[in-house]
Amino acid sequence: MKQESSQTPTSSEISKGYGLLDSIKTPADVRLLSLQQLPQLCDDIRRYLIDNLSVNPGHFASSMGAVEIVVALHYVYDTPTDHLFWDVGHQAYAHKLLTGRKEAFANQRRKGGISGFPSPLESDYDTFITGHASNSISAALGRAIADRNTPGFESHKTVAVIGDASIGGGLAFEGLNNVANNPNNLLIILNDNDMSIDANVGGLHRYLSELSTSAGYNRWRAKIYNAFRKEGFVTEESKGRIQRFANSLKSLVSGKQNIFEGLNIRYFGPFDGHDVIKLVKILRDIKNMETPRLLHLHTIKGKGYKPAEECPAKWHAPGKFNPDTGEKICEACASDPLNWQDVFGKTLVELARLDQRVMGVTAAMPSGTSVGMMLDVFPERTFDVGISEGHAVTFSAGLATGGKRPFTAIYSTFLQRAYDNIVNDVCIQGLPVTFCIDRAGIVGEDGVTHHGLLDIAYLRCIPNMRVASPADEETLRNLMFTSLKTDGPLAIRYPRGKATTCDWQTPFRQISVGKARVDSEEQDSKVAVLTIGPALNDARKAKEMLKLQGIAVDVYDMIWVKPLDEELLARIAKSHKHIVTVEDGVVNGGFGSAVTEWCRDNNCDVSIHCLGVDDRWVTHGTVAELKKECGYDAEGIASAVIKLLS
Amino acid sequence: MKQESSQTPTSSEISKGYGLLDSIKTPADVRLLSLQQLPQLCDDIRRYLIDNLSVNPGHFASSMGAVEIVVALHYVYDTPTDHLFWDVGHQAYAHKLLTGRKEAFANQRRKGGISGFPSPLESDYDTFITGHASNSISAALGRAIADRNTPGFESHKTVAVIGDASIGGGLAFEGLNNVANNPNNLLIILNDNDMSIDANVGGLHRYLSELSTSAGYNRWRAKIYNAFRKEGFVTEESKGRIQRFANSLKSLVSGKQNIFEGLNIRYFGPFDGHDVIKLVKILRDIKNMETPRLLHLHTIKGKGYKPAEECPAKWHAPGKFNPDTGEKICEACASDPLNWQDVFGKTLVELARLDQRVMGVTAAMPSGTSVGMMLDVFPERTFDVGISEGHAVTFSAGLATGGKRPFTAIYSTFLQRAYDNIVNDVCIQGLPVTFCIDRAGIVGEDGVTHHGLLDIAYLRCIPNMRVASPADEETLRNLMFTSLKTDGPLAIRYPRGKATTCDWQTPFRQISVGKARVDSEEQDSKVAVLTIGPALNDARKAKEMLKLQGIAVDVYDMIWVKPLDEELLARIAKSHKHIVTVEDGVVNGGFGSAVTEWCRDNNCDVSIHCLGVDDRWVTHGTVAELKKECGYDAEGIASAVIKLLS
Repeated sequence: MKQESSQTPTSSEISKGYGLLDSIKTPADVRLLSLQQLPQLCDDIRRYLIDNLSVNPGHFASSMGAVEIVVALHYVYDTPTDHLFWDVGHQAYAHKLLTGRKEAFANQRRKGGISGFPSPLESDYDTFITGHASNSISAALGRAIADRNTPGFESHKTVAVIGDASIGGGLAFEGLNNVANNPNNLLIILNDNDMSIDANVGGLHRYLSELSTSAGYNRWRAKIYNAFRKEGFVTEESKGRIQRFANSLKSLVSGKQNIFEGLNIRYFGPFDGHDVIKLVKILRDIKNMETPRLLHLHTIKGKGYKPAEECPAKWHAPGKFNPDTGEKICEACASDPLNWQDVFGKTLVELARLDQRVMGVTAAMPSGTSVGMMLDVFPERTFDVGISEGHAVTFSAGLATGGKRPFTAIYSTFLQRAYDNIVNDVCIQGLPVTFCIDRAGIVGEDGVTHHGLLDIAYLRCIPNMRVASPADEETLRNLMFTSLKTDGPLAIRYPRGKATTCDWQTPFRQISVGKARVDSEEQDSKVAVLTIGPALNDARKAKEMLKLQGIAVDVYDMIWVKPLDEELLARIAKSHKHIVTVEDGVVNGGFGSAVTEWCRDNNCDVSIHCLGVDDRWVTHGTVAELKKECGYDAEGIASAVIKLLS
Repeated sequence: MKQESSQTPTSSEISKGYGLLDSIKTPADVRLLSLQQLPQLCDDIRRYLIDNLSVNPGHFASSMGAVEIVVALHYVYDTPTDHLFWDVGHQAYAHKLLTGRKEAFANQRRKGGISGFPSPLESDYDTFITGHASNSISAALGRAIADRNTPGFESHKTVAVIGDASIGGGLAFEGLNNVANNPNNLLIILNDNDMSIDANVGGLHRYLSELSTSAGYNRWRAKIYNAFRKEGFVTEESKGRIQRFANSLKSLVSGKQNIFEGLNIRYFGPFDGHDVIKLVKILRDIKNMETPRLLHLHTIKGKGYKPAEECPAKWHAPGKFNPDTGEKICEACASDPLNWQDVFGKTLVELARLDQRVMGVTAAMPSGTSVGMMLDVFPERTFDVGISEGHAVTFSAGLATGGKRPFTAIYSTFLQRAYDNIVNDVCIQGLPVTFCIDRAGIVGEDGVTHHGLLDIAYLRCIPNMRVASPADEETLRNLMFTSLKTDGPLAIRYPRGKATTCDWQTPFRQISVGKARVDSEEQDSKVAVLTIGPALNDARKAKEMLKLQGIAVDVYDMIWVKPLDEELLARIAKSHKHIVTVEDGVVNGGFGSAVTEWCRDNNCDVSIHCLGVDDRWVTHGTVAELKKECGYDAEGIASAVIKLLS
């Protein structure tokens, strides 16, 4: 099942030489280099990344910061016999380059090309899929223990690399809390760049930075350690004791405590994560320890590219740019409609002005969700809780018990991490939390781990939950207003990218809960197309295409998955022979399924055909390509109707 | 919406006097007592709990251990203006007794009676619903910040009480990590009884116990603190500094670090959680601090009832017992069938013997899931990860990448906490993790937070996932074997309580994936009843009832929700006028919905009627009562068929 890495259209910039990198076909080639050659290899990798990502957009700053870690790991460890788990794999581009995917890299994130994240389907060097943060410690611990229990595999090593934002997620803590429970040789590398996608938050973050800034102490500790080392006092056995004593001493000096040692995990660091030669030495030192341990490395997000170092949040995934000037190549026009997320963000600020009860909540995504717009204006009523979706939802529930109206904006795929919180903490109690589900549906290049395809199915089965999706900006705005004016939980899903109309900032208007909208009806149509969300636009296009072939269809913008507009549905079912439902989500249990259930329970004599994502995983490509592949773009809708009538 | 607390059938034991407790109608009455009367009140509460719970079973040991904490909190805080958040509310029985529910208590967990957990629908003193562990810090933080942002409410206090097992959950850590982010006055009380339901695990647990056992240090610290206090050195400002210095000193003395201080949360403790007078003094000391803080209390699970103190795990929820002797009153017969969980546990041990790859995983429930049976025999291949369902699943995925075959047993309702892990870490990669979903369906007395009603709906929408449910023990056994013999993720759901047959330990037999079983067919039946799981038994009973009325139905044990048996379905749809589906789960998006989707896509001319739980929350009562209420017990099935045919 390995993917082909051929047919890569490299740009002229990319085809120029990249020194040592050009000689690396597999990590074994890295291990043939001398220690002194490694800084050069790192430079070559960085040049390649800058040249390549400036024309083939991807995650830039994280990967630039992890180059030395990647090189040192492949140099010291016997990959793929030893296993690397990359937490949020977009830091791992250099890993892709060193593991046989340099040529394929120019095609990353494109349809048919390699993924932007590690993927075991793509390479034996990718041990685990890592698109959602905080899973590396748990997964790597499983692998380390599996190997330890497999005859002949006992000596294999396992390394988890996790960022300082990811390690604040509850799952990472659960992993840390379990690391010392069973014998294993797991090495956790904390790649601490002092950043999430946006600025990092939370007690652990502050803790890590304070841990790192006690410079006087660090010098002192290094001196003691080196003296001990010289005298031959540092043995395998004594290393840990010295380290623990040093940490205790440090907690006294700095007034801060070592959390990892508290959890019985040996702590080493912090060290400079960009000194590749020293990194190799440290890794060699601790490689064969038979005990779980954490190595804390300091890195700079965007390292090696000045514009990115200066403004790393903006360079997380910068799009195309001029590699020489750092100027971003903006392909949008001023007259383009806003992104959905900005319609949400601007509306949130308006609502917050209107109503003191409105609160904004984001989990590490103030820019990504535009909750940042409210954070700028109402900092005391806006909360960035870091990568903690579960907490974000339960915290919102707590706010709601105090009479507040939280608008909690989380990407559809990440909201899966808060499922129990939605069920137990919000819906059982019927609390008025508004879930603003961004990136719902297919998201494009980020691929399989990032599509938001399950939310309709996993939300509509929850009692007390209302689920809606706007087809246009004005409806998004009014759904948010409606949530404020009504009681109980409400989930509003909207997609990634540009909305469609421009004149949306009309006065707020309350929408009737469970009332759909007739988009267009014809005299003699046998087919009703029922859409949820922006799929309406595809249905409209399909209608035009069908008209050219003399086929009339009626189009309905259902707005609500739950409650459904039963009155309209009854009329539609009565007056049509076929219903076609269209949704940007899974068909199993989704919106079409809800329509089908209703028709079943009301003995409707109508055939129902549901378009959306079948029971399969969708990989990466542009949104348009993937919708086409799944058969629910305008052409897909039109052919479905033609097939029904034939 | 407050529930009635009348019509309580108190037993003669219960109607005897309970001293001070009898005078308490609301917490205001507690506050009228003198400090010196509080130990007596605690004794009275304990006597009441022993007498009452011995005849009306409930959660015993946790509540016995939290009596002083409850009394001290209501004594010092102005409830319900101040808010208490109980994490896993079954520790909070004493709280129910003091807040106007003493008479109603005899009816707790019964249909129409009060809930076994705090519930805002039941009392203004119950701020939040708390059936799932680890949510109290996040929810209470939300409330504390809401009050701080509400004019006139700024002085209200918020307290979260969390156990040492619950605090190991990822959600609790996310809460802790966010506590110091915004100004608030949250007090977290860590009720540390050194136990989960079973023995506690994890680095944090070890940390907490080591933190507490440095006796020499504790004496020393107390002396210093008291001396400072006497001299008037202990001011509001200096308290924190002294505490922090003491903690640093302690980390040096004990070689252990203070994690909470690391997260910028002031730490006080550990203190004796059964010294109610001292507890009141401490709470008064720290009540008005305007900063988040954690008070670490040591308690004994089962405190005040010797048999429970000696064996707290067995007294978590002991059922009926003789209060004088501690002898449990077992109402089961030796000839009863096994519990489903024990069929699972025994089979797991057999499979582990058969195949070295088999691993067992539980999240804090070795007894509750019977994974403990494997833990006894194969400790090195069995993992209790504590209250960490997300980690349990991702860790299992890691094991599976190393060629292992993890059987991961989690209650249906708690598996909601691992939803993203199931989707991303297991299903996208198609890893062979077997989800053994215990307590699927209605669970009875534990009520709304504990029913496992959503799993079919939230699992069957995930690509790559197979979902099955056995109607009898032999099928459970063979489904587990089948999972071992086939590839990819498989979810097997089975309910709480007794299975139905006895002779189940037959030789292992592989079941065809997606193949159902004809249970019984008649000559002239127009109705096909399709069941999933043990609902088969109700369908059989319904069939007998209908036979008496001259109505013939065919019964099919579908076994698989996904993949469905399409061949059989095609035959059923062709040869019947009506299909009735029966499932112990939500109808929206559930098993019946899957059958409906299939019939829709295959143009079947058959009416479909789905029985299960409608779009509503089910509260507590016996399983039989609740199934009846929801209309899918044998009578419900029979009447549905009669209605269809009329």
